[in-house]
Formats: sequence, structure tokens, C-alpha cells
Amino acid sequence: MAKVTVLNKNEVAALLDMPGVINAVEQAYAFKQSGLAELFPLVCHVFEECAGEMDIKSGSVDGAGIFGLKLVSAFARNAEKGLPKMMGTILVFDRETGVLKSIMDGSHITNMRTGAAGAVGCKTLARPDSQTLLMVGAGMQAYTLVAASLEVMQHIKRVLVYDPLSMETAKGFCRMFPDRLKNGFFSRYDAKYGDTLRSKAEVSIDPVEDIEQACQQADVILTATPSRQAIIMDGWVRPGTHLSCIGADMEGKQEIDEKLLARARVFADDRVQVIKVGECQKAVKQGILPPENIHEIGDVILGKIAGRQSDTQVTLLDSTGIGLQDLIVAALITDRAQKHGMGMVVEI
Amino acid sequence: MAKVTVLNKNEVAALLDMPGVINAVEQAYAFKQSGLAELFPLVCHVFEECAGEMDIKSGSVDGAGIFGLKLVSAFARNAEKGLPKMMGTILVFDRETGVLKSIMDGSHITNMRTGAAGAVGCKTLARPDSQTLLMVGAGMQAYTLVAASLEVMQHIKRVLVYDPLSMETAKGFCRMFPDRLKNGFFSRYDAKYGDTLRSKAEVSIDPVEDIEQACQQADVILTATPSRQAIIMDGWVRPGTHLSCIGADMEGKQEIDEKLLARARVFADDRVQVIKVGECQKAVKQGILPPENIHEIGDVILGKIAGRQSDTQVTLLDSTGIGLQDLIVAALITDRAQKHGMGMVVEI
Repeated sequence: MAKVTVLNKNEVAALLDMPGVINAVEQAYAFKQSGLAELFPLVCHVFEECAGEMDIKSGSVDGAGIFGLKLVSAFARNAEKGLPKMMGTILVFDRETGVLKSIMDGSHITNMRTGAAGAVGCKTLARPDSQTLLMVGAGMQAYTLVAASLEVMQHIKRVLVYDPLSMETAKGFCRMFPDRLKNGFFSRYDAKYGDTLRSKAEVSIDPVEDIEQACQQADVILTATPSRQAIIMDGWVRPGTHLSCIGADMEGKQEIDEKLLARARVFADDRVQVIKVGECQKAVKQGILPPENIHEIGDVILGKIAGRQSDTQVTLLDSTGIGLQDLIVAALITDRAQKHGMGMVVEI
Repeated sequence: MAKVTVLNKNEVAALLDMPGVINAVEQAYAFKQSGLAELFPLVCHVFEECAGEMDIKSGSVDGAGIFGLKLVSAFARNAEKGLPKMMGTILVFDRETGVLKSIMDGSHITNMRTGAAGAVGCKTLARPDSQTLLMVGAGMQAYTLVAASLEVMQHIKRVLVYDPLSMETAKGFCRMFPDRLKNGFFSRYDAKYGDTLRSKAEVSIDPVEDIEQACQQADVILTATPSRQAIIMDGWVRPGTHLSCIGADMEGKQEIDEKLLARARVFADDRVQVIKVGECQKAVKQGILPPENIHEIGDVILGKIAGRQSDTQVTLLDSTGIGLQDLIVAALITDRAQKHGMGMVVEI
């Protein structure tokens, strides 16, 4: 029988640090591009009568010696029952033997790697001297997005926070976020990583009511809303701005004016996926963004193509999320858990 | 965090009894036919350079209130490493909330439900007065196949065992099988079920060298070999015989002369699947078995169509295995484990 490490959400969080996750997400992009990782077909199912859905993302990461899967379920009516709406479970198997290595909660990993993906966009594509960051959407995902971006952007002095649904949510974010930085929330595995982010608690963080004005001040814009129509218009965005867009991950979702996509240098985590479910879908359908103008960020990381080509160019990363990110982070957690004897070991 | 029951192979075996598994397999066939269960698309991947493969079978069983998946891996070189070649892991989720309920080893379940599937073929299609059973292929799968068939066929007096590769394997089966019956190996969950099978240890069980002669004596023939060409010829099989064929589950596999398929009344667990990977593939390709002549056994169980139509008809069940069988058995095990406080409970 195999000895399998089982890790719950708290244990997963204790084994993660944002720099490690950022590194894992970069690896995911690079492995995908160089053929050292592969995604298997996605399985999706909707349970109509109970407003639920589940999907199974699976794949193999030769570079990390593993294959595995993440099953995510979302059941809208769970709140009434005191249960989380979204849940995820990740299984990691040894690539050489097929032996199950670990089982872990996937929700914190998803949140951390999605934040890291936005930050990899900033690190790879934003002007290094960027000083003002605008966060659009102040929900749960905003916490890891802003933290990860502060980790990789050394010169950010000011964070503006806008929430299209509620000024109160934006205010709440600005109140709670510095505490999470101070408490090392995003880098619990290694205190020294925590220190970098802790020092960022001094950055000014303010809610804003006027998104047009905020866009005109921003060097970097991060978006993470469930919007289904453009909330950032083409004319508002200054030359040289970088945008990392996380929100659009389903058919019909949109955050950015499609005209901005037509004039920006556009990057994707996966070209096929962003055309189908990402920020690019409308611009491609309208014919104003030819698919060949969408580059894959992994190619920039591998040095195969240029990222930003000038200080005045607008760059945009359309990040829809790829299962390989979860699997590489889960492999990292498995190694750390085994090294430190963390989690429960069961025989299956 | 969810409380998840984790069960290893020994615990799974302790929670199973053959009558319960036979009942679960009948349910799987019936639910599938009546739309109370659904299979999701199969995910397969071959790791060529290390002679490995994995597949993910997933589905939903409304009738049992669950959805879930089984991931099976087969790595040919594991024997050199002292590891099992095939491994399986099953995850069961609550159908109403998406909460993970249990994680268990899948190898014993696969073996039991495959044996039960052959027996459901006998129970549904064989002449009830059948007295002589021929088992073709004396490997691991033969143990549960014969045990399950003895459970459902009350008048079997004689079991003949033929192995196309090795007379020693057939002899070994005949030596070991009665002990397993006596020890209650196939019905550990409930001693009273074990008694039925224990009484069968008195049935005569003999290895045979001449398969043609054995076929001419048999009322029921079970096949479970990895053969890629017919090993049972049309002319050998008497009128009124029933065959449950388990071996063919991949392209190119065959155990039965295709001419026998053309004259028998043929049933499948899943019509599309048996044409693709089952015993029916060659006969359909040759045009001697029209697809519409392949009936689904679930329709017989539901009373929608007739099974056997006369005492002289040859009937045949082509069983390729469906993921719903695993899930329904896993749901049964989950309920029993929770009832008896068995397995390890972890929070994920």
C-alpha cells in the first residue's frame, strides 16, 4: 500500500510562500511552452437542478516528475447550508510509477497561484519603474493578486482599490490588507520571504470611487471581477501601462474594452483558451484582434519572443488559469510536507 | 473543512460482500438505462517512454446521491521496483453539495465488480437449471467471476477450469479457490452471505486440458483472458449455452469466434463501448453482427426487453466495464464505513 500525504487547507497554507508560488507559475508557463508539461482534456459537468457544477483538470508535468488532477466543484446553494460554495481537491501521482503521493485541499492553492499569475504578468511585462498600481475588484482574489504584485514590483508606492459593485468592499480591502501583509499571511512557509512583503505594509493603500481617474494615474492595472461587460475603457489607459486580467474565465465574461485589446501588445497563458473563455474572446470575434497577435507568456519567459517593446506600449496579460499551475504548486507542497513531516500520512 | 473517510485495500475488502456488489452492478446497469446515472468523458494518457498509462473515469449517480472518479494507472515496469503494476484510486463526492466524502483504493473494487458483472450476465441470461460452468482464463479475475456466478446460479454442480497459457495456472486455481470460498474471502462484510458461498466449496472444481470438449459440456462459459484471437470456436458451443465475456476491453482483443456472435443473442454493458473495444468489435466490422442486434443488459433488468427467448438460444454478455459500477460500489462502501466507523477520517 502507498503512503499518501493528506493536507488540509491550513496545512497547505503553512507550506506556501508567495515567492515559491510565483516561481512555480513561471515554471508552469515555461514547461508548457517547452513540452515538459502537458494538459489532458478538461472534463466539465453541470448539475442543473441543484445549481452546481464540477470540473476535472488533469495533466502531466515531466519537469516536476508528477502527474495529477484537480477536481473543483461549485454549488451555489451551499451558503444556505453553511458550506463553502467552491471546493477543490488535488491529487498528485509519481510520474514514473503511477503511485499516489498526496491529496490536498485545492482552494488556497488556486487563490495563491492565480495571484501569482497576475504578478508574473507584471514582472515580465510591466515597466520596472512602475509606481502606481490599480486593483479593480476587491474580492478574495484581490488579496493574493496585490500581494504577489508587490513582491515582484520593487517601486510601487501607491495602491488604488476600486470595486465596481461596492465602495464598502474596496474600503474593507484597504483596512484588512496591510494586516495580512504584517502577519505574513502570504508567506507562512518561510519567515524571511514574509519580511519582504511585511515591509510593503507601509505602501499607501486607498479606495477610489472614480475608476476613470484611477486608470489615468495607474502604471499597472490588475482586474479580478466577475464582469460581463467592459468596465475599463480604451481612452482611460495611459501609454506604457501594463494590465494583468484575471477575471474572465468563462464564455461571455469581459472586463476590458475590446478596443484596448486591439491596440495593446497582448499575451495569454494559453492562446486557445483565452480566445474561448478569456478577455480576448470579444476582440477576436469582432476581428479587431487577429489570433496571431496573441502571444504566449511562456515564450517571453523562455526568451523566445520579446515582451514589452517600448516604454509607451500598453501590455496586457489575459490569464484564464491552467491546471499545470496547480499541479506544480501541489508538487512543491508535497516535497515540503514530506521534508518537514507535515500532514497526515495514510496508507491507501 | 470536510471530514473525509480514507480506506485502504484491506478496509475496502472488509466492507464488501459479493451479493452487495452484484446488487450494485445491477443498479449501475439499471440507472444507466433509466438516466439516473451518467458517465462523463474518459480521459486517457499514455506515458510512452516509461511504458505507463493512466485513465480517469468519472460520472454521476443521481440514484446513489454521488458523483466521483476513478483514476487507474498501469506501469509495466513497476514489478522490477516491487510495486503493483496496476493501481486505482476512487474519490466519492456528495451530489448535492460537491463535498468530498471518501477516498479509497480501487483495485479490489474493480476485481469484485468485474466478477459481479459476469454473474449478472448469468443471473439475467443463463438457463436457471445450468449445472456445468466453464471458466476460461484462470488469472486473478477468475476468482471473483466464479465466486459471483456460484452465488447467483443455484444448480451448478461442476466447475471446469481452462487456462490457454498454462495448465499449472488452472491447477493452482482449482487448489486455491475452494479455500477462499471456505474462508469467506468474497463476503467479508457479512458472515451470513459468506455461508452461501461457503457451502459451494463442495462443488467439484477441476482443471481441463481440452477446451473443445469442455465447451461441449458447459451450460455457462465465463471468459477472462488477455487473448487477441478467438479461443472459443463457434462449433464447440451447445444450444442453450450462456457466455459472459470479460476479457476484451481494448482495441484488438478477442476471445470468441465472431461467427458465434452472429448467431447468439448478444447483450452489452454499453453498446458503443463494446463495438469499440469489446468482444463485438470484429463481428461488427465484418458486418455479420448489425449494431442494432446488440442489446443493453440494463434494458433486460428494467424489463424493457426480453433476455433469453428459448432454452436452445445461445446468449452472450459482452462486458467491457463501466465506471458507474465502481462509483456505486464505492458509495456502498462509504455508507458502510461511516456506519461502522471504519477507515481513517481526515479533514481536508
